[in-house]
Amino acid sequence: MYNRVALIGLGLIASSMFWAIKRGGLAGEVTGYARSQATRDTARRIGLCDTVCDSAAEAVAGADLVILCVPVGVMGDVAAEIGPHLASGATVSDVGSVKRAVIDAVAPHLPDTVHFVPGHPLAGTEHSGPESGFAELFDNRWTLLVPVEGSDADAVARLRGLWEGMGAYVDEMEPDHHDLVLAVTSHAPHLIAYTMVGVADDLRRVTDSEVIKYSAAGFRDFTRIAASDPTMWRDVFLNNKDATLEILGRFTEELFALQRAIRRGDGDHLHAYFTRTRAIRRGIIEAGQDTDAPDFGRGGKR
Amino acid sequence: MYNRVALIGLGLIASSMFWAIKRGGLAGEVTGYARSQATRDTARRIGLCDTVCDSAAEAVAGADLVILCVPVGVMGDVAAEIGPHLASGATVSDVGSVKRAVIDAVAPHLPDTVHFVPGHPLAGTEHSGPESGFAELFDNRWTLLVPVEGSDADAVARLRGLWEGMGAYVDEMEPDHHDLVLAVTSHAPHLIAYTMVGVADDLRRVTDSEVIKYSAAGFRDFTRIAASDPTMWRDVFLNNKDATLEILGRFTEELFALQRAIRRGDGDHLHAYFTRTRAIRRGIIEAGQDTDAPDFGRGGKR
Ligand SMILES: NC(=O)c1ccc[n+]([C@@H]2O[C@H](COP(=O)([O-])OP(=O)(O)OC[C@H]3O[C@@H](n4cnc5c(N)ncnc54)[C@H](OP(=O)(O)O)[C@@H]3O)[C@@H](O)[C@H]2O)c1
Ligand SMILES: NC(=O)c1ccc[n+]([C@@H]2O[C@H](COP(=O)([O-])OP(=O)(O)OC[C@H]3O[C@@H](n4cnc5c(N)ncnc54)[C@H](OP(=O)(O)O)[C@@H]3O)[C@@H](O)[C@H]2O)c1
Repeated sequence: MYNRVALIGLGLIASSMFWAIKRGGLAGEVTGYARSQATRDTARRIGLCDTVCDSAAEAVAGADLVILCVPVGVMGDVAAEIGPHLASGATVSDVGSVKRAVIDAVAPHLPDTVHFVPGHPLAGTEHSGPESGFAELFDNRWTLLVPVEGSDADAVARLRGLWEGMGAYVDEMEPDHHDLVLAVTSHAPHLIAYTMVGVADDLRRVTDSEVIKYSAAGFRDFTRIAASDPTMWRDVFLNNKDATLEILGRFTEELFALQRAIRRGDGDHLHAYFTRTRAIRRGIIEAGQDTDAPDFGRGGKR
Repeated sequence: MYNRVALIGLGLIASSMFWAIKRGGLAGEVTGYARSQATRDTARRIGLCDTVCDSAAEAVAGADLVILCVPVGVMGDVAAEIGPHLASGATVSDVGSVKRAVIDAVAPHLPDTVHFVPGHPLAGTEHSGPESGFAELFDNRWTLLVPVEGSDADAVARLRGLWEGMGAYVDEMEPDHHDLVLAVTSHAPHLIAYTMVGVADDLRRVTDSEVIKYSAAGFRDFTRIAASDPTMWRDVFLNNKDATLEILGRFTEELFALQRAIRRGDGDHLHAYFTRTRAIRRGIIEAGQDTDAPDFGRGGKR
């Protein structure tokens, strides 16, 4: 479908894309580049990319698709670096978790001769780096394409085909709405999980070893989320400030109402609230976005 | 080990205990009782308990171990009901998620001739009811025994043996400390997850169907937690008020500091905080309390 795909940044997302592209036979050749010699060496050792290049300029030369797979905060720098080396008619995309800020940072550096089609796969794990990827990461998960003013319809359709080939469902969305939806379904929950784990770590009257031994259901999930890459998430929050702060504002408002209900012993308020939230879970299971297995998450231990 | 074990309440925990007791051959006979005819019928149909009784009094008659497996808020009522029917020398225990309030509610109803040894298995799922249990629920999880003033050492040791036979690790803990540890590792995280899912459900600018389709990692875990039984959790919060509110107070304090860092663009504060929380996760994985598999939680879907 593409002759030459260039992956800039070789972490979880890029390495998963590479394996998914190979699984599906979706590109003639895949080149890659990462900032550090260490990551490039690892990539060469494990066969990640057909060619690992020593500069981003070299990696994008002759590519008909270039995908930026670096933290949101350095997308602009990387775009500036590759801009002069892009082939005419190439498509440039990205996988950043925030869209408005990435578009504003990247677009000015791209020549008029390329098509810019931002994207975001809604799939991830708490692991990062070149060895964390796997071909199945995007299977049955959504990828959002966020075309900008003037995105070429054919370029969008071709990129959609690539993502579908990698196993994803694809939707299109407007950038500001994307950033709000993700603030709700991902960014605010991550900040909340980081916060709760930080509080547990910080309490003087409960030792870390007690927290670790007795980490019950809820909290164990939080620690997994809070083990995600600090650089990636710092960049997400700094670049999706308004939507994240808006949702956190709504969150604390509700949390205060529930705390007040606890303090006053208002069991009806609590019961009604907890009943309402069950419906969302049912929807997610019916949509095939999670499993309902009762021993969910424990299989790996046996 | 016990001649006759009586399970009062036949939900997730009791049914898991029954299957684990059978798996290990840990009791001569197990009787059970639940409040509703529907649950008793289901129990009889699926072979849950050797005998399902139509009153709690009947179920506890002649039992040398009675375990209260009902929501925290009704423990006192159930104790009052069974108190006059307990065999002399029997041990009475419970599995409630809160300990101080349960001890205060139950102890006054027990005759001096029985041993009271409260307990709490730190294992659960978001499912409930008589059909949700499975024998492996307690395997490699901790159960906390919380002996009260005057708990007989032999009675404690024997109950410890039962839990170990069901696959659990066992520790002893003092009730108030138990309630604080659980507020951190379970109760506050549950309230936070309920809150976040409620906020997502409530937003006018993001539809429920968007929330469901695009529920990314973090949020999916929250929805699972927030699908837990409303009655059980209402009772937990109302009966562990002080510790839960204390931890939520610390949580909102930290959350405000992180929100301020986002607003001010203080990336160093965010990065340092997110780096610290990773250590806790490593500890949990090393302690064998969770798995590090990269596709964790998705296995059930394939
Ligand atoms: N992880 C998720 O759950 C997830 C999900 C969806 C989208 N995303 C988005 O995907 C992007 C990549 O995330 P990831 O999880 O794949 O990250 P990752 O595993 O941490 O990898 C990031 C890669 O970017 C490289 N890099 C960093 N700064 C660079 C620079 N200035 N120039 C060139 N390369 C640079 C790194 O190189 P070195 O190895 O040499 O440092 C590394 O190879 C981010 O924008 C993130 O928001 C992540
Ligand atoms: N679920 C967890 O994750 C978890 C983990 C550790 C500890 N716990 C604790 O374990 C206890 C039971 O939880 P669970 O998850 O097993 O609950 P569950 O599945 O909802 O079952 C509760 C059982 O209690 C019965 N019940 C309720 N009120 C009663 C009453 N007044 N008299 C007699 N029976 C009554 C119910 O009978 P009907 O079916 O007839 O209504 C039902 O059989 C709770 O104290 C909870 O805090 C739960």
